[in-house]
Amino acid sequence: MNTTVAFIGLGAMGYRMAAHLPQHFDTVYVWNRNFEKAKQHATAFGTQAVALEQAVQADIIFSCLPTSQDVDDLIQGLKIKSGAIWVDCTSGVPDAARQQALQLKQLDIEFLDAPVSGQTIGAENATLTFMVGGSNDAFQRALPAMQAMGKLIKHVGDSGAGFAVKAVNNMMMAVHLCAAAEGFTTLKAHGVNLHEALDCINASSGKSGVTESILPQRILNRSFPLTFGLPLLAKDTGIAIDLVREAKLSTPILGLTQSLIQAANSLATPDSDFSTAVKMYESWSKITLD
Amino acid sequence: MNTTVAFIGLGAMGYRMAAHLPQHFDTVYVWNRNFEKAKQHATAFGTQAVALEQAVQADIIFSCLPTSQDVDDLIQGLKIKSGAIWVDCTSGVPDAARQQALQLKQLDIEFLDAPVSGQTIGAENATLTFMVGGSNDAFQRALPAMQAMGKLIKHVGDSGAGFAVKAVNNMMMAVHLCAAAEGFTTLKAHGVNLHEALDCINASSGKSGVTESILPQRILNRSFPLTFGLPLLAKDTGIAIDLVREAKLSTPILGLTQSLIQAANSLATPDSDFSTAVKMYESWSKITLD
Amino acid sequence: MNTTVAFIGLGAMGYRMAAHLPQHFDTVYVWNRNFEKAKQHATAFGTQAVALEQAVQADIIFSCLPTSQDVDDLIQGLKIKSGAIWVDCTSGVPDAARQQALQLKQLDIEFLDAPVSGQTIGAENATLTFMVGGSNDAFQRALPAMQAMGKLIKHVGDSGAGFAVKAVNNMMMAVHLCAAAEGFTTLKAHGVNLHEALDCINASSGKSGVTESILPQRILNRSFPLTFGLPLLAKDTGIAIDLVREAKLSTPILGLTQSLIQAANSLATPDSDFSTAVKMYESWSKITLD
Amino acid sequence: MNTTVAFIGLGAMGYRMAAHLPQHFDTVYVWNRNFEKAKQHATAFGTQAVALEQAVQADIIFSCLPTSQDVDDLIQGLKIKSGAIWVDCTSGVPDAARQQALQLKQLDIEFLDAPVSGQTIGAENATLTFMVGGSNDAFQRALPAMQAMGKLIKHVGDSGAGFAVKAVNNMMMAVHLCAAAEGFTTLKAHGVNLHEALDCINASSGKSGVTESILPQRILNRSFPLTFGLPLLAKDTGIAIDLVREAKLSTPILGLTQSLIQAANSLATPDSDFSTAVKMYESWSKITLD
Repeated sequence: MNTTVAFIGLGAMGYRMAAHLPQHFDTVYVWNRNFEKAKQHATAFGTQAVALEQAVQADIIFSCLPTSQDVDDLIQGLKIKSGAIWVDCTSGVPDAARQQALQLKQLDIEFLDAPVSGQTIGAENATLTFMVGGSNDAFQRALPAMQAMGKLIKHVGDSGAGFAVKAVNNMMMAVHLCAAAEGFTTLKAHGVNLHEALDCINASSGKSGVTESILPQRILNRSFPLTFGLPLLAKDTGIAIDLVREAKLSTPILGLTQSLIQAANSLATPDSDFSTAVKMYESWSKITLD
Repeated sequence: MNTTVAFIGLGAMGYRMAAHLPQHFDTVYVWNRNFEKAKQHATAFGTQAVALEQAVQADIIFSCLPTSQDVDDLIQGLKIKSGAIWVDCTSGVPDAARQQALQLKQLDIEFLDAPVSGQTIGAENATLTFMVGGSNDAFQRALPAMQAMGKLIKHVGDSGAGFAVKAVNNMMMAVHLCAAAEGFTTLKAHGVNLHEALDCINASSGKSGVTESILPQRILNRSFPLTFGLPLLAKDTGIAIDLVREAKLSTPILGLTQSLIQAANSLATPDSDFSTAVKMYESWSKITLD
Repeated sequence: MNTTVAFIGLGAMGYRMAAHLPQHFDTVYVWNRNFEKAKQHATAFGTQAVALEQAVQADIIFSCLPTSQDVDDLIQGLKIKSGAIWVDCTSGVPDAARQQALQLKQLDIEFLDAPVSGQTIGAENATLTFMVGGSNDAFQRALPAMQAMGKLIKHVGDSGAGFAVKAVNNMMMAVHLCAAAEGFTTLKAHGVNLHEALDCINASSGKSGVTESILPQRILNRSFPLTFGLPLLAKDTGIAIDLVREAKLSTPILGLTQSLIQAANSLATPDSDFSTAVKMYESWSKITLD
Repeated sequence: MNTTVAFIGLGAMGYRMAAHLPQHFDTVYVWNRNFEKAKQHATAFGTQAVALEQAVQADIIFSCLPTSQDVDDLIQGLKIKSGAIWVDCTSGVPDAARQQALQLKQLDIEFLDAPVSGQTIGAENATLTFMVGGSNDAFQRALPAMQAMGKLIKHVGDSGAGFAVKAVNNMMMAVHLCAAAEGFTTLKAHGVNLHEALDCINASSGKSGVTESILPQRILNRSFPLTFGLPLLAKDTGIAIDLVREAKLSTPILGLTQSLIQAANSLATPDSDFSTAVKMYESWSKITLD
């Protein structure tokens, strides 16, 4: 396609995501704060490592940064191409997306909040899920570029809706993590074999993404690999609670989960995988989930 | 096989479960309080409708009744065959299993607590999951009979362990139900399309058995079919909390969920499906999950 | 004293508070949106009903409005006397106080957030408690005017601190209300005489302002007089939770209480006294607290 | 009076309570497992240190032991005087009281559950509060003996009601403790002076026995004197939750508080005062309540 695409932010996710773009687009710019990484990406995948000023002259500009604040700071002094679509894959703040979209709209630039799920393996295999907020027109125009990197691409609502779905997804995962920690601690306290119990529950109504993947692959085997930091989960559950507050809702389970994840996070070292939240429970019960 | 098998309690689950036994055992007794149902079963599947006194002369005796109390009451005056194994598929109370096992042991009868999951469709297709507590010897001897009705048969621990796994499974499902109600209410309050959001979450880390089945098949379509009553879920979450109390554990999420399910149950009519628990949330938020 | 004092907002609290000022100050301006009330106040207590523009020429200007937003809106277009101190007795938002103080500072005007407690009876008897945030210098200068209306006047910290203490006070009261509702429901379910039990608890470690006043005077006698609306309590618990979120703290009990008050509020009519929150519990337990 | 009275269990409370009895009764027996203490009591206060067998020949027999189990164990093999009243001042289990009362009734002995509040200072000054469950006739007959040691003596209901009121009182105190810890942590995080804030709250609607006594006398001064152990508070909150479960109630705040106290208890050494529960919060927030 003649559309020019740029990818800003070549972290663990972005590096793998951008690698698929040259197969579908003739011109693919990449940029990264540590620019060596951009040059390495260009060599490896046939993208072009360019200055940030040039990257934002693309028709479709992807960003994948740690927080909405990073995106806002980056966009600040930039002169972005009029008519472009900015697709932000950060796990960001819905309200920031709404404001960013409003401001860019005045410059005739569309903003889509388009966080992804599927982890690095999904980025590598172009099987990510995109949950996208913004105008339908911008969504349709950016769709081919997202399809180059993902499998399930959903337009979930107006600006902010994409970030909202991601925050709620992560919040629900946090709830399931706490439920699994509490439930399996209870079973072990009563002498139940956790591995056999897990097989049963995964074949029953009580299963979740946590019982199917996190519990066997990170917790019961005591590996706790750092792929998604506990501070980031604490941030995301906070975003979800801010959505609750904004709408004046009553969500007792989400609220309590946020408190628990916040507490676990403050007890852990900053480089802890989110799955280490169970260690707070283990310190309470003197029972190890293994 | 020459082993004689009996099935006591031909409800929605038991009726379908017992139907598979004649394919593997020459003599299969069935008994039901409403005896017409037993006779109908005999006619349909080649079992033998017999008096309760005769049924308990079988080598392996299955029971599937509403509560542990019903099982205890039934066993009370009975003269069960010495050397028999009683396999109780009720969703029962771990402590009741421990006491029942102890008492029957003195009469040289083994007791296995062996609750099942998989619903009526699993009973019909012999694909149930059995989570079994009791001695390993009894488990091995009863295994072929359980295999006739199930697919995943797990020995999860000593007496009571089977009931404990079932209670914790149902408790975790209740947590997931509350989390889904709260999360999707929050999304709808922010204008998100729930059906698109559900697709995204079911492809992401926040999924659960509830988001995969209960939410689309019972709640978002507003059908709330009565297949598992809210009073039974309230009972099961209570059993889980009793396990927590017995072991002096701290399980904030499970405890709060039990409170919420208890409240929802007291607000609902007794013939409400467990999925109607979301209606309590809807009355709080004035938001309908559809 | 020669200091000129103004009082803006003559609601149930403000009307009674301003009545004490003429005993200590020669010139006391009053203003109210419904101006008839200001004129009535002038006649009754010897204050001067003046235009808003004149009121803000006083040396010390008190305001007592429903929300921080009302105060911000009011201050917006006004030309306040340079060197004046604005003392805001609204139960307001700490962050609004910080911003208001910062903006007025640039015009050489001091802002104190100075919410009060003690209800209308305390306003009538000049026995209110003032919890004051802002500079110490402004606090000292405004002290005599506050002493004319209150008994305990405390400088609790910088701008916002006064509102923070009020929000946390009301939040704690909300927790105590929920605890009392739950505890006394439990006692009644077990056949305990609530009035005798209340006497015991009020002489023991479990007492609170709620058990000493709210329970006997509003709930057990089923009077629920509207003196402090449930929507206002829901607002105040929300302010407290925003403080928690801002500081990234983990406060499970406060968070859950906010959810419960929010739910109770959404189930009640807008003119319900805060004490009617117990009716949500009564609908759950079918037990009336009388 | 000619009535013979006995006091069994001369701990910190019992020793001081029994000291008042000789002023009102001619014959006062005392007994203690460590019998030296009984002899010391006889010398100091004019009671008679007797064998347990003789003590239970008194007309009114008080007991004050750590748990209901201790009382049950003690009563087991004893031959108590027919027509006697056993007044148990232990902070015990309602269900144990009901069963004990039923069994003693068959021997024509009355049982009153009569826990006290007021701490050692109240025991010393005979100003304790007695919350009493059992028959009205027994209550009236034992009243003069309780009046010798207490000020407020209330008959709150049938057997078990006294223990229930005490458990709920302690549970409510635990809620207030958590609320205070969370609320004051929030204030300190925002730079508020806690001592000034405490003065304001103690003059406002958010006050409680905890803010009036526990916070200033044990926590803010960092003394944490061991007068009521955290394990005992964990036990009492557990008793309250068992009452909730028994009546199938929904008490989210009480349930969550029990989880938090249980967690704090498992993190503390067994000789920790109940007020040290706030240290769990301090480990979460890195904020010290001083």
